[in-house]
Amino acid sequence: MAMIVPQRILIAPSGFKESLDASTVASAIAAGVRRILPGAQLVQMPIPDGGEGTVAAIAASTGGQVFTETVTGPVGQEVTAGWVMIQQSGQRTAVLEMASAAGLSLVPRELRNPTTTTTYGVGQLIAAALDAGAERIVLGCGDSGTSDGGAGALMALGVRILDKQGKDIGFGGRALRRAASLDAGGLHPRLNEVPITLACNIHNVLCGERGVARVFGPQKGATPKQVAKLEAGLENWAELLEREALFVQGKDLKYGAGTGASGGLGVGMSAVLGAELGGRFDVLLDSGMAGIDLDAALQQVDLVITAEGAIDFQTPHGKVPAEVAARAQRAGVPVLGLAGTLGQGAPSVHEIGIDALASIMTLPMPLAEAVECGEQLLIDAAERTMRLVLLGSAMAARGEQMA
Amino acid sequence: MAMIVPQRILIAPSGFKESLDASTVASAIAAGVRRILPGAQLVQMPIPDGGEGTVAAIAASTGGQVFTETVTGPVGQEVTAGWVMIQQSGQRTAVLEMASAAGLSLVPRELRNPTTTTTYGVGQLIAAALDAGAERIVLGCGDSGTSDGGAGALMALGVRILDKQGKDIGFGGRALRRAASLDAGGLHPRLNEVPITLACNIHNVLCGERGVARVFGPQKGATPKQVAKLEAGLENWAELLEREALFVQGKDLKYGAGTGASGGLGVGMSAVLGAELGGRFDVLLDSGMAGIDLDAALQQVDLVITAEGAIDFQTPHGKVPAEVAARAQRAGVPVLGLAGTLGQGAPSVHEIGIDALASIMTLPMPLAEAVECGEQLLIDAAERTMRLVLLGSAMAARGEQMA
Repeated sequence: MAMIVPQRILIAPSGFKESLDASTVASAIAAGVRRILPGAQLVQMPIPDGGEGTVAAIAASTGGQVFTETVTGPVGQEVTAGWVMIQQSGQRTAVLEMASAAGLSLVPRELRNPTTTTTYGVGQLIAAALDAGAERIVLGCGDSGTSDGGAGALMALGVRILDKQGKDIGFGGRALRRAASLDAGGLHPRLNEVPITLACNIHNVLCGERGVARVFGPQKGATPKQVAKLEAGLENWAELLEREALFVQGKDLKYGAGTGASGGLGVGMSAVLGAELGGRFDVLLDSGMAGIDLDAALQQVDLVITAEGAIDFQTPHGKVPAEVAARAQRAGVPVLGLAGTLGQGAPSVHEIGIDALASIMTLPMPLAEAVECGEQLLIDAAERTMRLVLLGSAMAARGEQMA
Repeated sequence: MAMIVPQRILIAPSGFKESLDASTVASAIAAGVRRILPGAQLVQMPIPDGGEGTVAAIAASTGGQVFTETVTGPVGQEVTAGWVMIQQSGQRTAVLEMASAAGLSLVPRELRNPTTTTTYGVGQLIAAALDAGAERIVLGCGDSGTSDGGAGALMALGVRILDKQGKDIGFGGRALRRAASLDAGGLHPRLNEVPITLACNIHNVLCGERGVARVFGPQKGATPKQVAKLEAGLENWAELLEREALFVQGKDLKYGAGTGASGGLGVGMSAVLGAELGGRFDVLLDSGMAGIDLDAALQQVDLVITAEGAIDFQTPHGKVPAEVAARAQRAGVPVLGLAGTLGQGAPSVHEIGIDALASIMTLPMPLAEAVECGEQLLIDAAERTMRLVLLGSAMAARGEQMA
């Protein structure tokens, strides 16, 4: 007789943007599954993606020490940002999240103009980690509200960016058009000895049709005119870096992988500081630094449940459920995807290894209500979905018994 | 090795009120299932419940001749209502639906006052069926917009209902307070030879706490004052019928089963015309007259999918999914329930044999949009839900293979 499965389930979700962090998503799914499968072994593994919630997820999975720092936010306001220090191969590694200092959610809707927002606070966070004795820095990218090529962050670390008259250019992507020279004489002294790795979406490039200004500018609130200004500023910025930055040999600053990460933070960190631009899942999952070994966990389970706030046509392009599905497929484990909303093109995820989908929605309701009730809706959805899986499992078992 | 199941699926839904009729619901579910199980045997069996869509469902499943008749609607307007003539045990049986002549959806929202609405058109429909040569009449109840104790229908069939001055009382439940005598001298002559059966919810009673006025009055738009008037009118009506109607022996006109069906249409038809008050599923499913043999179909399948516009705490109380689940349980067939919306208390249906549930909703959206896109949402939901069932089925099969 066939067994009723699943008995061992890995819960490996993303956070739901602007609603639930990944740890809360994982525990809500576990609570729902437990209602119907009280004896199942559930492993909760919230998956950080570099963006909002990455520090919280890594702090939760490693137990590392959390620090907070008050820094200058993307529109000049005071922002309190957290970061976490973890031990990795005997090294003190600081894990930072750019969104905590310069994320889109820190830009009030009425101020969404990506030609003016700054990554200054990101540089302040890096300085704080250096001052606290970090021996390595990992900087999560994603969910940025900025497009300044990382210029603000470099300023906070002691780099001066000057116009033709030798004056500081000031904040924001639009100022980059006037950038004419660099002065790195005041650079934070520990940057010489502390390697920085960015965990970024390496598909993001700085310039051109698929670049920061044209793809992300409008999402961050730019008008067509502002997009054109931004593009010109970022082009000029890349050319200045090519002439004057230290770490440019063999690099394509305009179209290289990851140069456009977090509004061009990638290119600035890479060219001026020699930061490594790594794929976010390679950096966060495969280094072992996050206390997460997804591939090993997949060897031990019958089923993996992943989740994201919205599953749609964008999901296959490097989102958490796509990464989980790719690794699950290699391990031969079926994948169930839960979503707050299933948007346009959601069924395309079946082609990348997500076997079945469900939404948490049960009623016509406004978005605000769905967000407010998100955790309870998710618990209920996990139970409901597992009942459907068990219905199929029981039918197959019964079919076998009768055969 | 366990089989991948299900391969034979019965699709036995209700209609979605004010959105999709039961046949459309059945074919949408079939379309969704076929996308993922193209080789499965699907049997579509839309289940009539006596209310809106009953005539359409029976016409579709039997191929009976459909007639239309222009009658007086619940607020005095002209309404074109359809009914169907079918052959049953060699008899010409007319199947009518009270909602087509006096349903709540025929009462404009601004006119929702159940003390004035009339079942006059229902009597006209019955007369039309008699004139067309029906040898038996089955009248579906449910979704009524009236509370006149069936007085209007009786008037249309030639019964006079008079006040103390010997004047006709006029339309509506509030007029019943003045009803003092009956004059059945002008009754349609064929009513002597043609039996009438009402397919009703036999839990509905005429008077008291669980009666027409108090339970359904507010749903049909009555104010507390109107509820009190209605209750008094219906009490007086029952007492008049006890004194003067022909078919009252051994009957409890105020609290007897089904007396309150369709705003008291039950009591009027039963007491004055000798109509039989039958449980709606007994009448519509078990007589074979609807061309539907649910129990026989359940013997042939691995899974039954039922559906309703809303599944909630009311579903166990005699709704279509509850009836399907009860019969499926007896046949040992698992039940999957699809709903437009899963409301308060939806999980209570697991106790009455519905094994798993899913909603068609995928996004926060207003009700109007969900209704407008209902058919497409349902097709997608059927596919999505079946993928979850198949995931479980395939896991069990693989578990067996590896064991």
